[in-house]
Amino acid sequence: MRALVLQEFLRIVEDYPPPTPLPGEALIRVQTVGICRTDLELLHGYKNFQGIPGHEFVGIVASAPDAPAWEGRRVVGEINITCGVCRMCRMGYPTHCLARATLGLIERGGALAEYLTLPLHNLHAVPESVPNDVAVFTEPLAAACEIPTQLHLAPTDRVVVIGDGKLGLLCAQVLALTGCDLIVLGHHRDKLDILAGLGIATTLDETAIAPGADIVVEATGNPNGYAAALRLVRPRGTMVLKSTYAEQLTTDFSELVVREITLIGSRCGPFPPALSLLERGLVQVRPLIQARYPLSEAIRAFDHAARPGALKVLVNI
Amino acid sequence: MRALVLQEFLRIVEDYPPPTPLPGEALIRVQTVGICRTDLELLHGYKNFQGIPGHEFVGIVASAPDAPAWEGRRVVGEINITCGVCRMCRMGYPTHCLARATLGLIERGGALAEYLTLPLHNLHAVPESVPNDVAVFTEPLAAACEIPTQLHLAPTDRVVVIGDGKLGLLCAQVLALTGCDLIVLGHHRDKLDILAGLGIATTLDETAIAPGADIVVEATGNPNGYAAALRLVRPRGTMVLKSTYAEQLTTDFSELVVREITLIGSRCGPFPPALSLLERGLVQVRPLIQARYPLSEAIRAFDHAARPGALKVLVNI
Repeated sequence: MRALVLQEFLRIVEDYPPPTPLPGEALIRVQTVGICRTDLELLHGYKNFQGIPGHEFVGIVASAPDAPAWEGRRVVGEINITCGVCRMCRMGYPTHCLARATLGLIERGGALAEYLTLPLHNLHAVPESVPNDVAVFTEPLAAACEIPTQLHLAPTDRVVVIGDGKLGLLCAQVLALTGCDLIVLGHHRDKLDILAGLGIATTLDETAIAPGADIVVEATGNPNGYAAALRLVRPRGTMVLKSTYAEQLTTDFSELVVREITLIGSRCGPFPPALSLLERGLVQVRPLIQARYPLSEAIRAFDHAARPGALKVLVNI
Repeated sequence: MRALVLQEFLRIVEDYPPPTPLPGEALIRVQTVGICRTDLELLHGYKNFQGIPGHEFVGIVASAPDAPAWEGRRVVGEINITCGVCRMCRMGYPTHCLARATLGLIERGGALAEYLTLPLHNLHAVPESVPNDVAVFTEPLAAACEIPTQLHLAPTDRVVVIGDGKLGLLCAQVLALTGCDLIVLGHHRDKLDILAGLGIATTLDETAIAPGADIVVEATGNPNGYAAALRLVRPRGTMVLKSTYAEQLTTDFSELVVREITLIGSRCGPFPPALSLLERGLVQVRPLIQARYPLSEAIRAFDHAARPGALKVLVNI
């Protein structure tokens, strides 16, 4: 099969061996893939991953020997392949499975190829009304939905989202649905206007935000975002960290103690509410799509996604 | 009155003017004072405090013009003098009052003198059965009681307390009362033996603790404690930070995100449960007392408290 393969550098391989589904797994014909910042980090050695990248996808089940009813269905898939028996799996946190592989990230070839395999229980059928270009946002939108699974957001809370990248725009839309008093702090008027068009308050100017927010979500991918979050959160307030920083971060932890701030790390989230929000049109993702490339031009797609300020780049397989 | 005064350096002053109670305040004849690590940090410029240090005290109400029933009662006192009208006060977090003064720490002379003043609503009567040497631990024990006000500790949780200093020994005793599976990691066999004598598991060896704790309390005052806590906590687990570090701390925040760890800063706590635990003998504080000095030798008391590994040093006024 044709595949984008990372082996020291990215290359298109025309005759890559297609994956073989294990018992309980499905073979999926990939249709649409989104490129994520984590994919770009793989190029810089993140997770020492070698193989086919890509983990945001929509596809059609080509074969599912153990459950033929899945065949022909359009699906998205949870990216962590879990053991089901470790302590974290049994605690109900499969995304933290201690023995997990992760599609296109850890010990499992990913979605930038004609075929991929995933366990059947990772699959979610895509409602007919949700086109591929929308459904491909299920995985990153699930990461935004992780915030309300970890934290109670009251409609009375003052909430700030910092960051107007892909994740910030998704987090802001999810949090706005709580009815909370939300404002989004960003650096790009054009991106903030996507939110402004949805009735969400935005600003380019931190000083326009009254300090003392109950909850601040840091989604910049930049240590400066952490510093701004710390300035904006109130004592006994909560900072949600969605960003992973490549660099180490130096900070005054005493301020967290003296002001009794809670800091919550937040990563992968639940697919069903994300799909539901997309189906009901409660989150708008089309304005986040910036470009589409065919698989044969996937390396150009990566270059595009790596441009500063780029939003979502899709690859059609 | 006689007082210990910090003015560039510590000195005993014999004729310091006694404080005058404002409306709603009491004048208190101080009897016993505990020296805390924060007091030592004042000598290095913390909070730029000048004046009488000391905030852990027991005393007798000498006069309370607005509430004479308090006169003659033995009391401990909450250390934050609050405005009652700011957002944090009205949210029920008076220890975070945005306009607070703090006894012996911020804009209010402290306890290492013959007299101090505090608002009446800061005072708590000490039960007759609780002697001064025990009651003087109310304030630091309240800080330990802050943990269960911020966080649900289930009896099924695996909990690690890191640090065998004063605060670690108090936190461990409070958390042990939940029935949780607790172990305390320290550096000093003699201090850990105080806990071992109370039936609390202890170790000097981090590798003797299975990783994957649900909750880790960091009470070392040392950035190495943070690193150990991060090694010991499970994904989706909680780290409680009780320590303030003088130095900045450099850390990989991505690990907090990827493992979805919650980090909770924790400071001053509630006096009533602390007094109740002391009255019922559920927390043992006498083994933490290492030395007693008269006020005239308070400078020597500070020197003693500053020795590495020192436990509680008391000053009798």
